[in-house]
Amino acid sequence: MTKLRTLLMLVAMLVGLNTLSAQQNLWQKKGLTSPEILSDNSVVVRLYAPQAQSVVLKCDFVDGGRVDMTRNDDGVWEYRSEPLASELYCYRFSIDGMADMVDPSSSYVMRDVGTLMSYFIIAGDKGSLYSPQAVKHGTLSRVWAKVSDGRERRMTVYTPAGYEQSKRKYPVLYLLHGMGGDEEAWVATGRVQEIMDNLIAEGKAEPMIVVMTNGCTKHVAAPGYSEEGMWSPYMSGSMDGSFEKMFPSVVEWVDEHYRTIAKPEMRAIAGLSMGGFHSMQISKEYPAMFDYVGLFSAAIFRGEEGVATYDDLEAKLERQFSDKPQLYWIAIGSGDFLYDENVKYRELLDKLGCEYVYRESTGGHEWRNWRIYLTEFAQMLFKK
Amino acid sequence: MTKLRTLLMLVAMLVGLNTLSAQQNLWQKKGLTSPEILSDNSVVVRLYAPQAQSVVLKCDFVDGGRVDMTRNDDGVWEYRSEPLASELYCYRFSIDGMADMVDPSSSYVMRDVGTLMSYFIIAGDKGSLYSPQAVKHGTLSRVWAKVSDGRERRMTVYTPAGYEQSKRKYPVLYLLHGMGGDEEAWVATGRVQEIMDNLIAEGKAEPMIVVMTNGCTKHVAAPGYSEEGMWSPYMSGSMDGSFEKMFPSVVEWVDEHYRTIAKPEMRAIAGLSMGGFHSMQISKEYPAMFDYVGLFSAAIFRGEEGVATYDDLEAKLERQFSDKPQLYWIAIGSGDFLYDENVKYRELLDKLGCEYVYRESTGGHEWRNWRIYLTEFAQMLFKK
Repeated sequence: MTKLRTLLMLVAMLVGLNTLSAQQNLWQKKGLTSPEILSDNSVVVRLYAPQAQSVVLKCDFVDGGRVDMTRNDDGVWEYRSEPLASELYCYRFSIDGMADMVDPSSSYVMRDVGTLMSYFIIAGDKGSLYSPQAVKHGTLSRVWAKVSDGRERRMTVYTPAGYEQSKRKYPVLYLLHGMGGDEEAWVATGRVQEIMDNLIAEGKAEPMIVVMTNGCTKHVAAPGYSEEGMWSPYMSGSMDGSFEKMFPSVVEWVDEHYRTIAKPEMRAIAGLSMGGFHSMQISKEYPAMFDYVGLFSAAIFRGEEGVATYDDLEAKLERQFSDKPQLYWIAIGSGDFLYDENVKYRELLDKLGCEYVYRESTGGHEWRNWRIYLTEFAQMLFKK
Repeated sequence: MTKLRTLLMLVAMLVGLNTLSAQQNLWQKKGLTSPEILSDNSVVVRLYAPQAQSVVLKCDFVDGGRVDMTRNDDGVWEYRSEPLASELYCYRFSIDGMADMVDPSSSYVMRDVGTLMSYFIIAGDKGSLYSPQAVKHGTLSRVWAKVSDGRERRMTVYTPAGYEQSKRKYPVLYLLHGMGGDEEAWVATGRVQEIMDNLIAEGKAEPMIVVMTNGCTKHVAAPGYSEEGMWSPYMSGSMDGSFEKMFPSVVEWVDEHYRTIAKPEMRAIAGLSMGGFHSMQISKEYPAMFDYVGLFSAAIFRGEEGVATYDDLEAKLERQFSDKPQLYWIAIGSGDFLYDENVKYRELLDKLGCEYVYRESTGGHEWRNWRIYLTEFAQMLFKK
């Protein structure tokens, strides 16, 4: 067999992998690279759409979140950004009023609730922290745990590098998602594995287990991972106390199945938005369970309806803070729509004499902040 | 706080999750459901594209793989299929000659090599086997193993339901991907978790560990999961013997880190295309390692160049088969472009008196067949 024949067979093997991808490989506009990160950290995104009248780039790296793209003579629409700061950025295309599309030239998409977004990373400080580096990597597992509602529920568990090889026990961070999210959210958009691998490798965070639950008690798993089938996530969340009630059985299951240090001073709970609400509630309802609490843009507001577990709020907070938590950390962006509610909550804590640490960032109710909060929070845990 | 206010805050919390998804939620064509599976198992796919001149559906559920969609008065393009047999189906849209797009109304996509495809499942026999059911689920882990090339390499490991709770030891199936694939391929497109969970729950397959390696020695992990960053997969594979050489260290690592029955009669190796080639090679080079071998559409052809490990093929096959394997299973579709090469390989085995089981299906070099082969192969393993 000649070299040419060997090569042709290799090509055929690849192209033959799937009829659809074969077609795609042959028909896709050749040589189109998108996104392309240039040496000055500007990015060029491109879309081949020869007959389109208008292509709008919707993204988080231009002011206002949208910009018109420009068509060149080859039918390729382009946009070149300003040099960008190190970050993880997302984008989609809006073509002639169609529903927004991910970039067909990139296979890097992440799902946030029910929306797919193309993304890229500009290396540097944050971008490098959110990217896999040449360090020891932890294990990421999707496990099923039978909890107190009698159902098996899916969780994502990060164990740090070395866990399998050692016999030591580890502290645990319980990390909760927001409304519409699920046990995949912190992994996909929150970059948990990359952040924890990198912080631990640099000695900035203690090696710890991170447990990511599904905070919607109606569902046992993220869309597509349970017998519910291929549903579309939308307003899925649990703010009726049902999630909080099952949480002790989650902790119990984790302590049984992992080598944990099953003590409050080696347990943290944190979450974003609804997950911040859950963290506040759970740490208050079970004050002997967690010595570290993180509220990231927490959905804290005092409802008379629908939020049953707010009974005796003051008394329960006083009970929780009577044995001063190691860290009660409240973080929010100055532009967050929940800012005022968090001010009110801090005023209540102040009135009750409950000590907390407050961290105010710029920006709003967005993953960009939650990744930063996780990065900062993780470095403050379990150092005693 | 009134009910209305509570509701508005919940909506705001969801919409506020991300600027992009907020925009998407507000701007997306309302009420567009795609795909929609009707009661007769026909499917309707829809795309809102009011200004498009032509929308072609590329898919694996119409003859020829493509069909024109029809525009209705609302600017929605539709296609309704014939009633479909139970299966997992993939599709993409080709709009006015643009690069093929996944369905913006669905968040269910899978990556095959570098191509994203929208997918849906028609329940019934195969479709239900490929879907999560209300059964006990195994754990799926992404782990990093230091192997004989001195690098940490990423693997996907399925452990069956009950593994964590028991002290028993399990047999292991090593399951290898094809050219361009990686350690994610069998999970995403191959539906390993669903197939194994369901077969084991029904008592049709023995509980077993499934280890999915990355057969491209140049890369240590799938795109985006290592310090190589966000590269585009294409001709990535290893057919130079380097993968085969490191395989004993993979088995050793698995035996050290999991409760395996570390005996050849409790080990199987199988793979598709290039992974079938690897399975043939590895089982031949290390004849005392595996008692079960599965070649799925194996990329078997006798090269004089580039396939170094074909030295002494006949002698090594005779050595391997002198201690008759429990099962040596060769499966291929009658329409596979590697069909003739597999005929030649079987003729060689016949000449040498090597006993195997041959399974010929319809169809070609495609995941649809590989899921079927896995289903059949898994049920024949470790039953003695």
